[in-house]
Amino acid sequence: MPDFAIAVDLGGTNLRIAAVSTEGRMLEKIGMSTNAAGPHHVIDEMCDAIQRLSHKHRDAGSLIGAGIGIPGIIDLDEGVVRTSANLPGWDNYPVRAEIEKRLGARICLENDAKLAALGEQWLGAARGVDNMAMITLGTGIGGCIVLDGKIFHGMNGMAGEFGHITVEPEGVPCGCGNRGCAERYASATAVLRMAREAIAAGSAPELAQAANAEAEFGARSIYDMAMQGDQPAQQIFDRFGRALGIMLADIVNVLNLEMFVVGGGVSSAWDAFAPKMFEELRIRSTIYAVTTPQDAPTDGSVPASRTGKQTIIARAQLSGDAGLFGGARLPQL
Amino acid sequence: MPDFAIAVDLGGTNLRIAAVSTEGRMLEKIGMSTNAAGPHHVIDEMCDAIQRLSHKHRDAGSLIGAGIGIPGIIDLDEGVVRTSANLPGWDNYPVRAEIEKRLGARICLENDAKLAALGEQWLGAARGVDNMAMITLGTGIGGCIVLDGKIFHGMNGMAGEFGHITVEPEGVPCGCGNRGCAERYASATAVLRMAREAIAAGSAPELAQAANAEAEFGARSIYDMAMQGDQPAQQIFDRFGRALGIMLADIVNVLNLEMFVVGGGVSSAWDAFAPKMFEELRIRSTIYAVTTPQDAPTDGSVPASRTGKQTIIARAQLSGDAGLFGGARLPQL
Repeated sequence: MPDFAIAVDLGGTNLRIAAVSTEGRMLEKIGMSTNAAGPHHVIDEMCDAIQRLSHKHRDAGSLIGAGIGIPGIIDLDEGVVRTSANLPGWDNYPVRAEIEKRLGARICLENDAKLAALGEQWLGAARGVDNMAMITLGTGIGGCIVLDGKIFHGMNGMAGEFGHITVEPEGVPCGCGNRGCAERYASATAVLRMAREAIAAGSAPELAQAANAEAEFGARSIYDMAMQGDQPAQQIFDRFGRALGIMLADIVNVLNLEMFVVGGGVSSAWDAFAPKMFEELRIRSTIYAVTTPQDAPTDGSVPASRTGKQTIIARAQLSGDAGLFGGARLPQL
Repeated sequence: MPDFAIAVDLGGTNLRIAAVSTEGRMLEKIGMSTNAAGPHHVIDEMCDAIQRLSHKHRDAGSLIGAGIGIPGIIDLDEGVVRTSANLPGWDNYPVRAEIEKRLGARICLENDAKLAALGEQWLGAARGVDNMAMITLGTGIGGCIVLDGKIFHGMNGMAGEFGHITVEPEGVPCGCGNRGCAERYASATAVLRMAREAIAAGSAPELAQAANAEAEFGARSIYDMAMQGDQPAQQIFDRFGRALGIMLADIVNVLNLEMFVVGGGVSSAWDAFAPKMFEELRIRSTIYAVTTPQDAPTDGSVPASRTGKQTIIARAQLSGDAGLFGGARLPQL
């Protein structure tokens, strides 16, 4: 009988808690709102819910621990939230000690963005691949490196800052102080910015019309227009794919890992950006070029044979639950 | 009493063999030429020399093994040279098995360029730093990542291909098929090419004069002229530093390691390229910027305090013997 772990995804507005068997089966998933009463209250409610879940699934085995995904900068050694834009009032709160006190179980904290990679490595696109990296395309670009099945943090938890790799030395200024960071071209924010620039330049009449007509005009609408053949929209995703391809080629050249998984909300625009991404990758990374068979699928699916030591670029498979699976994996490592 | 290891640097024209104590003391170093008689003969002579050295230093302790640095692509699992431009006739030669047969000792093979990093990590600039990378500036750019004190190879030994990181998306074509690779701007070859371009454009009269007058005109002479104030020569090293800074910032962003050691013959031009390199690094890597104190020395020396988890860029310290020390370290890991 497999045991089970608890995963918590602690967001600024929502809290998700799941019980997952050590074999990777989702036993139950519950959601609740993170009310504004501060960390103490949230931790109380979270622990009550964890206890209810554990009790309910005690027939499934014993609780081996809990993995908590938290947005922001976490001191993993101390188990403390250092600072979190989404969790005001949590700075320097000793999350791990407070939960351990209430539950008496093994508690592991992790940055929430890193956990999706661990989930994909355990049960998703990179199942069975010990060394991989994940690129998460969202508002910005998140990144995570997994070595020997464990998250590689670097010196102070900042390894995997793929979004700030320079892809255009004299490019668009980034909030980080650099110019031409990858995430200035390959993220939801970037897609919208490039569309607005094209509209302002008068070179994208269809986009201009859509921007006026749609209240929810954003990366999704621009993707739809690109797929329907609107050229200015296609050009935006060409720039997206080109930036992503340069960034990926750099990462392949540095790390030479077995697999790179591309996920996050904006990865659903795959059909629009992937052709250009693969084109750049083939040119800019000899490693990718020589370790990828000529007939490699460009839709991100995994080639049948993994025996030839190929560099594989794959789409994420677990979508919304990747972080929960990753959280459940943490106490097992 | 410390034991000792043997290190071999097997080059296309020269063979260097050293006995190094496990405490890191160079006991003896000998050189011999690699004659054209083929691998069998070279291995015979190498093993004779190793046996003489071992016998001579048997009072220093017992031989724990030998680390052999080889230029080219090596199958580390099989202990075989796959292909080597500098060692014609060695393709698929089972180096490890042949040496083990003759010596009966533990033999470790490694790409020669990687061993300098291990030497610097053991006894040089990165002594006591478990996680570091080395950038070797020579004809091209070599790279090596060391994690937990061991060389990180990646999927098939190609991790650390820093020289082919894209620093100018539309830049100078590279032999690898890409454009704007770092080593097209930050290597001996690149310095000479940029000088020839400046001379051909008629914008570098002093360089033109030197190129005509000096039989040995090369990166060294161009460096000397830059340090003497020749502006076109300075501009070449500004481009060098800028490319190296972009490349380093990318690596810092991906790996977040404690230290990056810059070595290789062309690193002696440090004074000419380092100011621009640090300028780019500070702008292009937030990680470097926030983990480096304002008063960090820009001469590459290591700040007195390493406690604050700083990203350190340091110059290599072991120069020509780094690879031998690295080779001696291999059988100890």
